[in-house]
Amino acid sequence: MKAGLTTLITDTPEAGFALAVKLSQKGVATTQTDPAIRKALRPSYAHDANSLIAVSHVVATHFQTIAAANDYWRK
Amino acid sequence: MKAGLTTLITDTPEAGFALAVKLSQKGVATTQTDPAIRKALRPSYAHDANSLIAVSHVVATHFQTIAAANDYWRK
Amino acid sequence: MKAGLTTLITDTPEAGFALAVKLSQKGVATTQTDPAIRKALRPSYAHDANSLIAVSHVVATHFQTIAAANDYWRK
Amino acid sequence: MKAGLTTLITDTPEAGFALAVKLSQKGVATTQTDPAIRKALRPSYAHDANSLIAVSHVVATHFQTIAAANDYWRK
Amino acid sequence: MKAGLTTLITDTPEAGFALAVKLSQKGVATTQTDPAIRKALRPSYAHDANSLIAVSHVVATHFQTIAAANDYWRK
Amino acid sequence: MKAGLTTLITDTPEAGFALAVKLSQKGVATTQTDPAIRKALRPSYAHDANSLIAVSHVVATHFQTIAAANDYWRK
Repeated sequence: MKAGLTTLITDTPEAGFALAVKLSQKGVATTQTDPAIRKALRPSYAHDANSLIAVSHVVATHFQTIAAANDYWRK
Repeated sequence: MKAGLTTLITDTPEAGFALAVKLSQKGVATTQTDPAIRKALRPSYAHDANSLIAVSHVVATHFQTIAAANDYWRK
Repeated sequence: MKAGLTTLITDTPEAGFALAVKLSQKGVATTQTDPAIRKALRPSYAHDANSLIAVSHVVATHFQTIAAANDYWRK
Repeated sequence: MKAGLTTLITDTPEAGFALAVKLSQKGVATTQTDPAIRKALRPSYAHDANSLIAVSHVVATHFQTIAAANDYWRK
Repeated sequence: MKAGLTTLITDTPEAGFALAVKLSQKGVATTQTDPAIRKALRPSYAHDANSLIAVSHVVATHFQTIAAANDYWRK
Repeated sequence: MKAGLTTLITDTPEAGFALAVKLSQKGVATTQTDPAIRKALRPSYAHDANSLIAVSHVVATHFQTIAAANDYWRK
């Protein structure tokens, strides 16, 4: 997302889900801007079930937004 | 979901709920990509009431999205 | 919900709330499929204020979905 | 709410907020049906900031539903 | 909010945000009605990052409701 | 946001995301008004994975509101 977030429109739900994951990470990166610190934190959440569930909840919230933006990819 | 998420449309609310569970798991799997680690984590959340409640909350958020996508399966 | 979730439409808000409770439980049951384990977990959340508040939050999220599905039971 | 939840429509936002509080409590009461146990739990959450914040979040979710049901009490 | 909550309509997003903060506090006050206890709890959450983040999440939920009520203050 | 929040309308999703981060911080600042205390709290959340995930969830909720306000920046 080097050029910044320019659109919420994606071709497929799969691409919409990937964007939701990116926005969840972007929410962390705008708070903790140091990539080295973020990388050092990975073991503490990537091996913790409750942290992973919490991440999935953030992704679900962003996916809800992106799905609405794409009118749920209805044909 | 081998081919990736291609649609949010399901025939029934039951299928919509199953998709919501899948998307909740997908949110975890995109963060912790190693299936062996995810499997090793199962005892820590599958036997913890608060973790199970948190999982149910993620499913509820995805189900809200999928229900809207399917216009609540109204006839 | 033996036949699976076939509709979100209910006659009354009360029935809608009961369905929201059921879906919250369904979210747990699809993750921890063993009823004996779920039953064994009950004392740990049914006597814990924070767990009960978290359950109520899941019910509130499902109730929001079901209320929208029923157009808020507006006459 | 002896007769059960019959409507989400309220005359004022204040009454809507009161209903949201009731539904939050109803979500707890449908899980822990014993009023004596619920009463015994009160000191543990009513004197805990994080528990009170979590309760407020459940009320906010129900209030969102009730406000939409009442078309935000717009004249 | 002595006269009770009479409207969700505000002139500006800033006023809408202030109302969201008030409703978040109202959610706590309806659960813990004793102002002295609420005041005594302040040090425990006002100096705790996770509590402050949780408060901000409640405000965000109420702000979502109020923004929709005001059609996002779109001219 | 010295002049207060005057609009939710932004030119781009990127600007909308930045506004969502600001509103998440505003939710904290309206509760803990002392900038020195907020600054002192930073190490406790900026180096904690669960806190950062929780912040991202607040941002996601505000972003959902802002995206709807901007009709998802659909051309």
